[in-house]
Amino acid sequence: MSRVEIFDSTLRDGAQAEGISFSVEDKLKVVKAMDEMGIEYIEAGNPGSNPKDLEFFKEVKQIQLNHSKLTAFGSTRRRNIKVTDDANVQSLLEADTQGVAIFGKSWDFHVTDIIQTTLDENLNMIKETVAFFKEKGKEVFFDAEHFFDGFKSNKEYALASLKAAKEGGADCLVLCDTNGGTMPLEVYEMTKEVAKVLPEIKVGIHAHNDSGMAVANSIMAVEAGARHVQGTYIGFGERCGNANLSTIIANLQLKKGYDCIPEEYMEHLTSTAMLIAEIANITLSEKEPFVGRSAFTHKGGMHIDGVNKASHSFEHINPEIVGNARRFLMSEVAGRSTIMKKIHKIAPEITKESDEAKQIVDRLKELEHEGYQFEGAESTFELIIRKQLGKYKSFFELENFKIIGEQPAKDSIFSSYAMVKVNVDGTEELTAAEGDGPVHALDSALRKALEVFYPSLQEVHLTDYKVRVLDSKSATAAKVRVLITSSDGKDIWSTVGVSSDIIEASLIALIDSIEVKLLRDLENKIKAYI
Amino acid sequence: MSRVEIFDSTLRDGAQAEGISFSVEDKLKVVKAMDEMGIEYIEAGNPGSNPKDLEFFKEVKQIQLNHSKLTAFGSTRRRNIKVTDDANVQSLLEADTQGVAIFGKSWDFHVTDIIQTTLDENLNMIKETVAFFKEKGKEVFFDAEHFFDGFKSNKEYALASLKAAKEGGADCLVLCDTNGGTMPLEVYEMTKEVAKVLPEIKVGIHAHNDSGMAVANSIMAVEAGARHVQGTYIGFGERCGNANLSTIIANLQLKKGYDCIPEEYMEHLTSTAMLIAEIANITLSEKEPFVGRSAFTHKGGMHIDGVNKASHSFEHINPEIVGNARRFLMSEVAGRSTIMKKIHKIAPEITKESDEAKQIVDRLKELEHEGYQFEGAESTFELIIRKQLGKYKSFFELENFKIIGEQPAKDSIFSSYAMVKVNVDGTEELTAAEGDGPVHALDSALRKALEVFYPSLQEVHLTDYKVRVLDSKSATAAKVRVLITSSDGKDIWSTVGVSSDIIEASLIALIDSIEVKLLRDLENKIKAYI
Repeated sequence: MSRVEIFDSTLRDGAQAEGISFSVEDKLKVVKAMDEMGIEYIEAGNPGSNPKDLEFFKEVKQIQLNHSKLTAFGSTRRRNIKVTDDANVQSLLEADTQGVAIFGKSWDFHVTDIIQTTLDENLNMIKETVAFFKEKGKEVFFDAEHFFDGFKSNKEYALASLKAAKEGGADCLVLCDTNGGTMPLEVYEMTKEVAKVLPEIKVGIHAHNDSGMAVANSIMAVEAGARHVQGTYIGFGERCGNANLSTIIANLQLKKGYDCIPEEYMEHLTSTAMLIAEIANITLSEKEPFVGRSAFTHKGGMHIDGVNKASHSFEHINPEIVGNARRFLMSEVAGRSTIMKKIHKIAPEITKESDEAKQIVDRLKELEHEGYQFEGAESTFELIIRKQLGKYKSFFELENFKIIGEQPAKDSIFSSYAMVKVNVDGTEELTAAEGDGPVHALDSALRKALEVFYPSLQEVHLTDYKVRVLDSKSATAAKVRVLITSSDGKDIWSTVGVSSDIIEASLIALIDSIEVKLLRDLENKIKAYI
Repeated sequence: MSRVEIFDSTLRDGAQAEGISFSVEDKLKVVKAMDEMGIEYIEAGNPGSNPKDLEFFKEVKQIQLNHSKLTAFGSTRRRNIKVTDDANVQSLLEADTQGVAIFGKSWDFHVTDIIQTTLDENLNMIKETVAFFKEKGKEVFFDAEHFFDGFKSNKEYALASLKAAKEGGADCLVLCDTNGGTMPLEVYEMTKEVAKVLPEIKVGIHAHNDSGMAVANSIMAVEAGARHVQGTYIGFGERCGNANLSTIIANLQLKKGYDCIPEEYMEHLTSTAMLIAEIANITLSEKEPFVGRSAFTHKGGMHIDGVNKASHSFEHINPEIVGNARRFLMSEVAGRSTIMKKIHKIAPEITKESDEAKQIVDRLKELEHEGYQFEGAESTFELIIRKQLGKYKSFFELENFKIIGEQPAKDSIFSSYAMVKVNVDGTEELTAAEGDGPVHALDSALRKALEVFYPSLQEVHLTDYKVRVLDSKSATAAKVRVLITSSDGKDIWSTVGVSSDIIEASLIALIDSIEVKLLRDLENKIKAYI
């Protein structure tokens, strides 16, 4: 199999995304995660523009890497000075990484109008900077900034910038679509021409997503001969983001037969995406190709039937290959066979025609009629099945509660308080808490009371809270559906509540969320015992 | 300029997305929004599989459309029956739309193994169903399901399915990448071959995003000769979603010079994307190409310098063309001209350079930073401008309020009460009300108190109440944005409130809603007097 090198820039170009800022610990976690996925190069910072990155490069040496080589990112020397006099070049050297990515101008307009030097001097800057790092024994990637725009503006010059890097001794010429505006067929044709003009040197691609083409442009460059792909693992980066490597790896390895990462790591593609999102503190889009929660989720009845007959009828790959899972949504459209699959996970002995199955289906219909929707709330679904089958005992009772919200005078601050009394096996606990709004106050009070009995609840935090107003015609008296997603750092689960009262709907979902955690803990204890 | 038809399936394929469910009102809003964007075709439902869609097709006839043609979606007739005996075909006819999209099998494996009929019978099913609808005077799109997989499996048969549709009289052959697994170069080559084999008929593309290629595949098909593109306006759909039309329209029209929508509507591309997200109650990704909040947001100092020197140095297009705005994360500079348009409705004399304009812009930025969004909340926007200009006097003051919610014992019913004290020109009124939940109780109490002074408030009712959790990571302590739509039977207006407390956010929007009604009453009185 032909090899395509993967070069992850989550820590450099990814850190340019709005809302992203990594601590040193975060960065070390990302480096480990990329190494464990078998990613070949990790671009970990820009030491010239950011002194903190230099500190990080010292720290990262503590980590033993099994697969990845670290690289640092920086510019060619500035105009009209010696390479050795350039502070940025010195910082890059100090980073002491195996590889360096040097970006330089390949668009004539940028040379004359943005950095304001001559076309010849820019070529010298490229060649001398690359040569300097080659002499120091580095693997050198030349990032040809705005290559495709440059090619359209002045093809000879864009190619000359690549040739300068090659003459300097560069190991790889990386064609950058810096503004992200290039169309796939253009990338294909221009990359083909580069591969033709410069056949003896490795060509790479660095794409941005401003036209929604970053993944496609990367693949098109590979089709045209590129063998090195830069991006960020889950695609975040400045503006619309960088090329999403999790999508690219899956496409290249599963669809086009290239060798990007060790075959046995493919099944970690999804969990690593979740981990990177967790570290970056962003929500991974549910519809992310291959790794998103909905990527293999079927709603239409016909599609569900088809997948049950032959999974490839409505799935482009088997989700297990990338460590993801198939899900059938519990909508009105989905028939009883979908529900039976879920029942069988809890009680394999129940048949489709049994009274139990019928009762569960009736109960689900009743709840759906009330406004429940079990899409993305499998845990509530599981609890309902267990309760119907008598395979469930609640871990606590909520005896009573009261919420007070008040703004005592004009322009004073609105405050919310909650009091709850819970009962665990006959022992009562009364607590109160304050919060941002009534739901938050109630959540805080409930956890506070229950942690007395179940300390493991301290691990749980809510990762998502969604409110949907049903039948919004009846406005503030309308029913609301609250969907809560919780995590204890290992598992993620979702629960749902419906009521005409947002407090009650939230409470139903909160209680279920806690019950699920306690149920999982119990199951794990039993497993350990058996 | 060559024309490419845009066909929006937000209401059909988009409704297959996890978590999406549209009310009839939502659907009517989407139809209006697409018509106002100049989208040529709106696929509004699947009447055969969903009886509710049939009701909707009756309702939608009330709406006067200026640009769009409505289409309904359904299958070819079932095997071994007459077209006229097929219930699905009958429902499709009953929908009474100008166009119909008929999907049929073009992958031999699906014919034999999924719908389990003969290859010949499938071709008859296609041809006869298309012919039936042509006889009824419809514009017929043949959606060749799994066309690209079919082409790879049995090219002759895949092409035969297209020929059958053409023989039936189809107006357009839509090549569907139903599983979303096809790579861009494959789409390009196969579409080229279709255009070569069937040169006299319009070819379309319907792409799914399972490989992250839906947008690129749509563009590649157009490069290969397709002139009809199906997708959903902001890309949601089953699994990883459909081709994102907002991205495709921008790419085709701005980059490739095709004519998709009237030129003058391009500047509404972004606001329409926000509107559709709002109706669907989903969060528009900040990094969405062209229309996302971060799409033209610059963080790197070098990029900001570059953009200040020449905007095209680090931007592939000018954001104003698509109604978006450039943002610099360090020093924000907003698109003031959009705001000026709104200011001029209230105070035509104010110039762009005036202090008043500057203060309004600053205030809006402050509110946006807090999480406000004025798309679809024009009335709040108007009140803010009036307040800043001193052209506003509140009709009442809310002196104080208190909310109590309690469930006094286990299994007893949860009840909500609100007390409010208002002050109108020095006269106080204290009232209490009960409600379904705290917001409803507060709304009822507030109206009850104010109707004493302003009887016309009895005409007002809320027609919509939407809650959006912002930054859902911080879960129940996250900020919420509440959008309220009100009507007095003549006018409809929307207001918005943001707070970390859902009660407070609702209250802000409720108060504004009442103020707008009283302002309109006053304006009408003045008009009658003059």
